[in-house]
Amino acid sequence: MSDVTRAPVAVVGGTGPQGRGLAYRLARAGHPVVLGSRDAGRAAEAAAELRALPGVTAPVDGAANEDAARGAETILLAVPYQGHAELVASLAESLAGKVLVSCVNPLGFDKGGPYGVPVPAGSAAEEAAALVPSATVVGAFHHLAAPLLLDPEADLRHEDVLVCGDDADAKARVLALAADVTGGRAVDAGRLRLAAQLEPLTAVLISVNKRYRTRSGIALTGLPSTAEKEEVA
Amino acid sequence: MSDVTRAPVAVVGGTGPQGRGLAYRLARAGHPVVLGSRDAGRAAEAAAELRALPGVTAPVDGAANEDAARGAETILLAVPYQGHAELVASLAESLAGKVLVSCVNPLGFDKGGPYGVPVPAGSAAEEAAALVPSATVVGAFHHLAAPLLLDPEADLRHEDVLVCGDDADAKARVLALAADVTGGRAVDAGRLRLAAQLEPLTAVLISVNKRYRTRSGIALTGLPSTAEKEEVA
Repeated sequence: MSDVTRAPVAVVGGTGPQGRGLAYRLARAGHPVVLGSRDAGRAAEAAAELRALPGVTAPVDGAANEDAARGAETILLAVPYQGHAELVASLAESLAGKVLVSCVNPLGFDKGGPYGVPVPAGSAAEEAAALVPSATVVGAFHHLAAPLLLDPEADLRHEDVLVCGDDADAKARVLALAADVTGGRAVDAGRLRLAAQLEPLTAVLISVNKRYRTRSGIALTGLPSTAEKEEVA
Repeated sequence: MSDVTRAPVAVVGGTGPQGRGLAYRLARAGHPVVLGSRDAGRAAEAAAELRALPGVTAPVDGAANEDAARGAETILLAVPYQGHAELVASLAESLAGKVLVSCVNPLGFDKGGPYGVPVPAGSAAEEAAALVPSATVVGAFHHLAAPLLLDPEADLRHEDVLVCGDDADAKARVLALAADVTGGRAVDAGRLRLAAQLEPLTAVLISVNKRYRTRSGIALTGLPSTAEKEEVA
């Protein structure tokens, strides 16, 4: 593990279930984490809760989103798509020169269940990249169920984290983080524009969850097994 | 296995790799198959080739697309997206009252690799449903790699076939066919509109295939194992 990936990771939207879940798994793997929230007080409360969970060895702190982003080289964006553009634009200065990991799933729900919301930029990840050209955007962590991330007993090694991006160094950093989150495989899924496929796929998983009363996730077939993950990630 | 699913299955676009691959697996599982093509002669040749492959026990015949569709209650549509609307419209009469299984992946390729082509109707499956309202459209078989389907030695039991549709009876019929194709799991992915997510996901698989020199496919985590497939399919 390089020094870069042991630098603090910020989680913007860190008080939501997905953000807290990712932060928990990162902290358990030894990454210092700063939870960001619009409300620094709520972020501090959520950080205190995470510190009390089993296996957390790294520091977990809370801050306002902008301060969290400012202090990190890698920022996970774990927010709802609603309000996404405004939030990203408001953080532009603190994201400049950083690796921004978009975990955003633009989804809608109606009486027919979940569906992918069309995004003019193609995907939330590409929208963020257009809003903050000085940041390097990578897409990842779209498919891990928050309740599993937050369950200390849940083994996530069989879940694949699909990572997309156009910058090889940034993608390598996120692939390493992703393997730490699950203890399993991280897969280079290709170019950033494929976030347009990865993000709304979550609608399918939510649909399957309802039908089969489970927490589904994605694994790819045809790749080396988890035991051989180093060859993949 | 009910009589309905042992009725002949037509494969429109049955001389392409995906169509031939699906036809081979169906015929090996005992389903009579009629390969359709624009050119009845080419369909007959492809059928003769399939009959010579190991394990084929059911009849495999070739016909013009329209004749193939006319003689079947279940029609697999395994054609490129280019020309899709014109082809479906031209077959409307022979598809009326039938179950039409869209296996179509609207993909584009450029120097950046594969990507999902936006479809005004949302997905190719929904486009077909709009063109032939008297047919019942189900989406399935988007993610099985054609070379694996056609490889008599390839074990497909670890591949999940995700099936989407709005008609429960038609979906049940296709779930049963899908389990026969792979010998593994077929998963009810939800409403037909989720084809908008399933179809272009193939761009991600092709991207992964290139990067990892493999033939990747999809498996969901969180569902019963293949051995318990009856609970799922």
